[in-house]
Amino acid sequence: PEAASPAGAHDAAGPRLPSHAVSELDASHAQLEELSQRLKNALYQAHKLQDEFEGSFAKHKKAVKAAHKEYKLSSRSQEMCKYDELLTDLDTLMPTDGGTFVRAYLGNLNLRFMRHKERMRFKQGYELFKQHMAPLIIAFCVACLYFHNNRWLHMLFQLFLAYYYVNLSLRENILRHNGSNIKEWWIVHHYVSMIDAVVLVTWPNSPSYAQFATKLHLFGLYMGVVQIFQTRYQLARLYTLRSLGKASEMDVSNSDSTQVHYTRSMAILVPIILVGQMFQLYIAVTLFILYARYRGEYQILMCGFCFSVMFLGNFSSTVLTMLEKMGV
Amino acid sequence: PEAASPAGAHDAAGPRLPSHAVSELDASHAQLEELSQRLKNALYQAHKLQDEFEGSFAKHKKAVKAAHKEYKLSSRSQEMCKYDELLTDLDTLMPTDGGTFVRAYLGNLNLRFMRHKERMRFKQGYELFKQHMAPLIIAFCVACLYFHNNRWLHMLFQLFLAYYYVNLSLRENILRHNGSNIKEWWIVHHYVSMIDAVVLVTWPNSPSYAQFATKLHLFGLYMGVVQIFQTRYQLARLYTLRSLGKASEMDVSNSDSTQVHYTRSMAILVPIILVGQMFQLYIAVTLFILYARYRGEYQILMCGFCFSVMFLGNFSSTVLTMLEKMGV
Ligand SMILES: CC(C)(COP(=O)(O)OP(=O)(O)OC[C@H]1O[C@@H](n2cnc3c(N)ncnc32)[C@H](O)[C@@H]1OP(=O)(O)O)[C@@H](O)C(=O)NCCC(=O)NCCS
Ligand SMILES: CC(C)(COP(=O)(O)OP(=O)(O)OC[C@H]1O[C@@H](n2cnc3c(N)ncnc32)[C@H](O)[C@@H]1OP(=O)(O)O)[C@@H](O)C(=O)NCCC(=O)NCCS
Repeated sequence: PEAASPAGAHDAAGPRLPSHAVSELDASHAQLEELSQRLKNALYQAHKLQDEFEGSFAKHKKAVKAAHKEYKLSSRSQEMCKYDELLTDLDTLMPTDGGTFVRAYLGNLNLRFMRHKERMRFKQGYELFKQHMAPLIIAFCVACLYFHNNRWLHMLFQLFLAYYYVNLSLRENILRHNGSNIKEWWIVHHYVSMIDAVVLVTWPNSPSYAQFATKLHLFGLYMGVVQIFQTRYQLARLYTLRSLGKASEMDVSNSDSTQVHYTRSMAILVPIILVGQMFQLYIAVTLFILYARYRGEYQILMCGFCFSVMFLGNFSSTVLTMLEKMGV
Repeated sequence: PEAASPAGAHDAAGPRLPSHAVSELDASHAQLEELSQRLKNALYQAHKLQDEFEGSFAKHKKAVKAAHKEYKLSSRSQEMCKYDELLTDLDTLMPTDGGTFVRAYLGNLNLRFMRHKERMRFKQGYELFKQHMAPLIIAFCVACLYFHNNRWLHMLFQLFLAYYYVNLSLRENILRHNGSNIKEWWIVHHYVSMIDAVVLVTWPNSPSYAQFATKLHLFGLYMGVVQIFQTRYQLARLYTLRSLGKASEMDVSNSDSTQVHYTRSMAILVPIILVGQMFQLYIAVTLFILYARYRGEYQILMCGFCFSVMFLGNFSSTVLTMLEKMGV
């Protein structure tokens, strides 16, 4: 076996590295190797503790549950309160798979954010995605209004929407399982939008579709505009929360109970949103009237149903949120 | 302010907990709290090291790259070899977002498996998913063959397939970015299948569709059967790897270079797969002939294109894999 060639020596295999470069690279190479060893050890320790913690957590949770049941104690009973609180608090250290919807796409993946900054970055990415997609949605709608007979273009747009809502639903579920206060409804809203987009794809290029398409794309256009306003507000809200979060230096806990109150930017946003929701109601009614003329075309009925559900859920959620925020 | 009621005392708020239960719960409560504190500390340490490591890694990588460029050294140059090796090795400690496709659905999420057992569980979940879905695919195909005029049922099946291939593609990309040796082609194959399923959804209920549907569902039926055989083989392969992995007790590194050679179970599997691929070729040809009769129906052409690509890619990949495994 050959001895390793000394640094900077001529090498039969090819050009050589000057010795100062070698010594520099060797130094950072050694440093990186040492650091990686320390990291592996630290991870090993953390993983061992994680396993132990998960076992203890599950055991204690079971015991508390059994006590609740055996002694018929309500959660508000003073004695049990502290147990329940600790369990809720420490749940942020347990793994999560993001719930049924996410599991249906990704299987058993641990999607717990262990660091506050990771969660913040993810949430920001989610809002930026919505912000960047809004102009695309608007462009699609304008194109569909212009090429109102091009069923291929319309389908492409509808398929894009289906993808878009799957994306949002996945990310929102992940956020929700990491302590976001997002209301269940907004996620359901995106499931319904997803179903609606799929139903639109299956709608054949019939006279009923031709009658409906223009209204649909005008609504889409308005939605895109609302989206821009809304994500602008959400991003501002996020940056506020982020600076608050930084101040408290909590790097492990993910739960965040900061409540944002009714602000001036909301006073502009909410009327715009409410108009959009009235538009949804109008579309729903239009569809039911259309169905009366084209009985047997179930796509019309299904779309009408989706729009009704979206209107009802959105409107009541927005009103409820407003009432909460104004402290009523 | 009231003092806390002593353990086991009567409590105005409701029924009381017997003192032995209280002391038991208190003990496990305290233990859990203490453990969580230790875990938080360990995580804090690990995260700090992780940040430091990521910084060093990026810096060293840049320096090595610069040296490669400046001194025009090839990777095979003996001097650079050890630098490149360490970087490849330690890449398994760096975060990964799973590549473009996964990022398009999930945004900036760290999908690196830091533990061997996590990755194994994920891979197993992926294989089990395929195994559990195969009977469903078969059932769908049988139903579609029986109700050959029910376009709704056919659409439902095609939408299911679109979902199914998105699911597979997501998981395969995640696996690939965590050291799996899966060939790029199999992922591309699932992208193409996904596109094919979407094209089928948009195919109107026309005479051309009626002529094609039976062949399509017969092929689907055969595919489902192949799937069952293939996942059975992959799961057996996985369990072998897993026991090898356990023996070496590597819990941090994810890379795995174990090569599986040509086995007896493969000798049964491969002919079944090859027949399936010939079936794909047959479908492709059928579609091109059909297009000659129904010019202007682009769905026919697009499906034909998808099937041709799938046949070519699958067939050559399988043959190449076989040649590699037999050591040719
Ligand atoms: C009025 C409104 C903007 C209030 O937003 P808000 O101030 O963020 O409300 P909350 O304080 O209840 O938010 C709690 C959480 O839910 C999230 N959230 C609120 N509304 C959301 C929505 N529509 N979609 C996604 N996430 C939402 C927030 O980002 C926040 O997340 P966090 O806990 O991770 O920080 C919003 O709730 C709303 O009603 N949107 C209307 C959407 C709509 O109807 N669109 C279609 C009609 S055109
Ligand atoms: C012949 C075959 C079964 C060989 O499988 P194999 O022994 O697992 O092949 P390799 O050793 O190259 O596998 C390397 C990796 O790729 C994965 N892999 C191989 N083929 C795969 C496939 N078709 N889909 C998904 N993953 C696959 C393996 O699980 C392994 O993953 P790991 O590194 O995480 O353990 C397979 O490659 C094949 O050709 N399948 C045909 C699929 C097909 O054409 N279907 C449609 C026609 S009916």
